[in-house]
Amino acid sequence: MAGGAQDDRSVAERVFAIADAFERGDELTLSEIARRARLPVSTTHRLLAEWVSWGGLVRGDDGRYRVGIKLWRLGVRQPTARRLRDAAMPYLQDLLEATGEHVHLAVRDGLGAVYLERLSGPGAVRVISDVGSRLPLHATGVGLVLLAYAPDGTLTDLLAERPRKFQPNTLTREKELRARLASIRATGVSQSVEELTQGAFSVAAPVRDATGDVVAAVSIIAHADRAAEPQFAFGVRMAARGISAALGSDFE
Amino acid sequence: MAGGAQDDRSVAERVFAIADAFERGDELTLSEIARRARLPVSTTHRLLAEWVSWGGLVRGDDGRYRVGIKLWRLGVRQPTARRLRDAAMPYLQDLLEATGEHVHLAVRDGLGAVYLERLSGPGAVRVISDVGSRLPLHATGVGLVLLAYAPDGTLTDLLAERPRKFQPNTLTREKELRARLASIRATGVSQSVEELTQGAFSVAAPVRDATGDVVAAVSIIAHADRAAEPQFAFGVRMAARGISAALGSDFE
Repeated sequence: MAGGAQDDRSVAERVFAIADAFERGDELTLSEIARRARLPVSTTHRLLAEWVSWGGLVRGDDGRYRVGIKLWRLGVRQPTARRLRDAAMPYLQDLLEATGEHVHLAVRDGLGAVYLERLSGPGAVRVISDVGSRLPLHATGVGLVLLAYAPDGTLTDLLAERPRKFQPNTLTREKELRARLASIRATGVSQSVEELTQGAFSVAAPVRDATGDVVAAVSIIAHADRAAEPQFAFGVRMAARGISAALGSDFE
Repeated sequence: MAGGAQDDRSVAERVFAIADAFERGDELTLSEIARRARLPVSTTHRLLAEWVSWGGLVRGDDGRYRVGIKLWRLGVRQPTARRLRDAAMPYLQDLLEATGEHVHLAVRDGLGAVYLERLSGPGAVRVISDVGSRLPLHATGVGLVLLAYAPDGTLTDLLAERPRKFQPNTLTREKELRARLASIRATGVSQSVEELTQGAFSVAAPVRDATGDVVAAVSIIAHADRAAEPQFAFGVRMAARGISAALGSDFE
């Protein structure tokens, strides 16, 4: 096979590689998808036709491909996201009303915090998190809470990947991370200022299920100059407890 | 090939048939998936292993398969759902606060209305719609609004499929449907009582994008005994206009 790299991926793996191209970027051309999926354009074209025929992807008038409503509908069947969101929404709405800032609900996915929900007041601070975002555990309030209650070895794995210093305040060294995690476990809340985003502070607390396991975290991200206002830590703790109770937890 | 039915589906189509099994039911066994996908158990087992390896599906300790966070994250990249939801959330939240009932945002998908968002007050009436649900156009407030502004032929296609009479009030005949759609176009609002759900009434209004096209519908589903209260029709119209303006529309 002169000139062609060997590709020993199965057909299913090639089908999935097409989808992975949408990990970054919502609207992609054929050639962008081929490049990201590391597939010949002809193969990509054929597999895209299968995706479009099924409805998982759609092709717009501009020739670009997008995720289709069918895939969106399949995704919202994810039971964890659905159950947590259903339990959390009333508390997140209350928290939004009380603060007018960003309210987040996130779960751990490996070494990342995936944002299941975000509600935002009209004047909320500018942030990079969005529904579906996956941000590193060490740099976000929800991430640090999820890391504090993650299985042994999670911190070791995270340190092995050389955590990125997004801001001067971002915790990246083992000693300072261990101290923060111990403090979160002792107080049940994580408070940080400008660790991921300039001008923003974060308060986060753990959500437990009926077995007592921490299954999610809830947070507020607000303007840094409001960090001293007492309703944030109070509100986040109350919301986390309410969601835990809605999940059947009687811990804390 | 004695005894075996011919299956001329491509590998990709078999991969997608696995996903389609989750159209109804969030947690499925191997044999349930095989039956719904019309695949041999051995093929199903092998393709499920590929799905799990990719992360689109996960296998729980109970042996059942579920949609994974990876597929959920891919789904939320759907640009229409994301853009509409981002534009709509503040208005839906206001509407929830003003009414304490169910607030819906839906788009048309063929002959169905797909629910992109639902916010619900604690005492809201019992309904069957949920985020990701796809309900028939003729039987829901949002569906009738979407049908009123759908391309020519949509009503004909719907009538050809013999629309189901869910309740005594459900509109199923061409004449009554045409009259209702004309009234929606004239007034910009759909009001109905117990057409899908006993004890519930619905008020719905169209959302337009920057080109003036109706791209979504917003509705309230509330207890039937509150149907005379004026804030519902007013609130839904205001929310629909606000969302349209957020999408860049200056129509209406």
